[in-house]
Amino acid sequence: MTKRFGTRINLRQGHVDMTHGAGGRAMAQLIDQLFVQHFDNDLLRQGNDQALFAVDRGRLVISTDGHVVSPLFFPGGDIGSLAVHGTINDVAMSGAVPLYLSAGFILEEGYPLADLERIVISMAAASKAAGVPVVTGDTKVVEKGKGDGVFITTTGVGRVPDGLDISGANAKPGDAVLVNGHIGDHGVAIMSSRENLAFETEIVSDSAALHGLVATMVDAVPDIHCLRDPTRGGVASTLNEITQQSGVGVRLIEDQIPMRPDVEAACELLGLDPLYVANEGKLIAICPGGKADTLLAVMQAHPLGSHAAVIGHVVEDEHAFVTMETGFGGERIVDWLAGEQLPRIC
Amino acid sequence: MTKRFGTRINLRQGHVDMTHGAGGRAMAQLIDQLFVQHFDNDLLRQGNDQALFAVDRGRLVISTDGHVVSPLFFPGGDIGSLAVHGTINDVAMSGAVPLYLSAGFILEEGYPLADLERIVISMAAASKAAGVPVVTGDTKVVEKGKGDGVFITTTGVGRVPDGLDISGANAKPGDAVLVNGHIGDHGVAIMSSRENLAFETEIVSDSAALHGLVATMVDAVPDIHCLRDPTRGGVASTLNEITQQSGVGVRLIEDQIPMRPDVEAACELLGLDPLYVANEGKLIAICPGGKADTLLAVMQAHPLGSHAAVIGHVVEDEHAFVTMETGFGGERIVDWLAGEQLPRIC
Repeated sequence: MTKRFGTRINLRQGHVDMTHGAGGRAMAQLIDQLFVQHFDNDLLRQGNDQALFAVDRGRLVISTDGHVVSPLFFPGGDIGSLAVHGTINDVAMSGAVPLYLSAGFILEEGYPLADLERIVISMAAASKAAGVPVVTGDTKVVEKGKGDGVFITTTGVGRVPDGLDISGANAKPGDAVLVNGHIGDHGVAIMSSRENLAFETEIVSDSAALHGLVATMVDAVPDIHCLRDPTRGGVASTLNEITQQSGVGVRLIEDQIPMRPDVEAACELLGLDPLYVANEGKLIAICPGGKADTLLAVMQAHPLGSHAAVIGHVVEDEHAFVTMETGFGGERIVDWLAGEQLPRIC
Repeated sequence: MTKRFGTRINLRQGHVDMTHGAGGRAMAQLIDQLFVQHFDNDLLRQGNDQALFAVDRGRLVISTDGHVVSPLFFPGGDIGSLAVHGTINDVAMSGAVPLYLSAGFILEEGYPLADLERIVISMAAASKAAGVPVVTGDTKVVEKGKGDGVFITTTGVGRVPDGLDISGANAKPGDAVLVNGHIGDHGVAIMSSRENLAFETEIVSDSAALHGLVATMVDAVPDIHCLRDPTRGGVASTLNEITQQSGVGVRLIEDQIPMRPDVEAACELLGLDPLYVANEGKLIAICPGGKADTLLAVMQAHPLGSHAAVIGHVVEDEHAFVTMETGFGGERIVDWLAGEQLPRIC
């Protein structure tokens, strides 16, 4: 596609207005000068309303994730990098190699173009670092007061290597439950950055793309049974989803769950249970018990798994409960998240 | 996935609240009892954060579209059916057979669950009628006043049959330009339904899935050069996109552009140029001039093309202008849409 317009949009001082979503000249300028400029790849430059790519025979996955995080910029990331990481991770949790992303923007009239550009630059950087290009997209604008700055819905497709069979339905009694590091960082980082909390901390979001870690894991242990990223609802809700899907129970050991002391302290202060706090660079892996040591070793050898740990195991349980052996030697049920701990965390 | 909860959400009298996006029990109930219930297909029932499907070697396309139409219900459709048709059409405009859809919902706190159910039922019906299932999704909730009821971002993947090469970059001088029927219906239907316009009409949106029509067209004329659906910005903006991409001009003949008399009258009343009004069940096709009669015949034989017409032809033009021979024998330039005619039309 050739550059369509000589005039430049004012990215320094301009604001999103309704014409940027109208399908005419202003929208084409925004696409050319902001999105194509930064996402910069051959498929996007095809300039069609869809991106075309070749595939070999095999299995693909598709996953989608809306992002409405508030605030849009937070310690350790922003909605742009989060939108890339979140969808890459959902794709990767099937064991797949993520291939392509699409991005749908819903912008609020009046939002500063300079801030939108920061978000797009961050998104493009995350996409390039991950090696997963944004190949097609869409932009809509809603009137001031009908949105909240920027919402981004990303969709990803990926290819599942032959021989893998990873699903939340595959956990079996005797399996080990692992996590790749400290829990709760993302949720606490977001909370700390909200204006109405005077809470100060050095905690940053763990937002990260996990497909590289997953690739080393499935390479070492191809018979991993389940992978899932404990985002909204945290480790507790993710494990409850899996126990329901698989018809098993999980027994956690509290002392083995990695957590930063400052996150633990922040959770106590805020009255949050860290098991329900969102993560954006963490995964839960469930594998045959006999493979746990191997899996743990490859996880710990990866930069995104250096604090990995075995945190529990799968048991028979017709009620599909998640329980936890507490630090005091007791046992409690770890139920689904009821209600809303942390609104708009992702 | 087994049914997870005995209790039922109150779809008759309940409202969206923040817990429906929190990742816990309320969200799982909404997914089970509303989305999985109506979209009902094996891939969605996998219950994972991604849907897995097999593909043969070949070419795929991916396309995404956010939907923020206001009002959410309008003559001839609603945001649910529109979100299905819009993305199916973007996929089909490559000549592809649409395979799967994903759906990302951004809901506003307080929105009636009964209305959300109507939208989901309509969306599921459109998806089933088209034979393109919604296989994965996501739900987020924003606080009252930070959204506008329901936004839906749909992404589609499709398979391009071998031998096709359809792109906005492929128009050539001598090609014919066709449209499959009356223009402007969708935009005028939306305008007529907005509260602040006392304008009454029987005009309904043309919202429709065009992949069946496209299949018959590429079957009859595999060397179609371009296909594009003239949504936001209308026929005028779509043709300007194509002339820019292809480095050619287009010459339209006003008298040959199909339009309903009541749409023409409504546009005059509202001060709208119908060439810039959005369509949601229309396509522009560009094919070698010698194939125009064949293509027109198969289009007219299809229910969604009965009013199809040849509306112009492609010419050499280094400025990539779209011009129109008017009914009075004059000629005018049909430029890009400047500004915003019809906000939130899709």
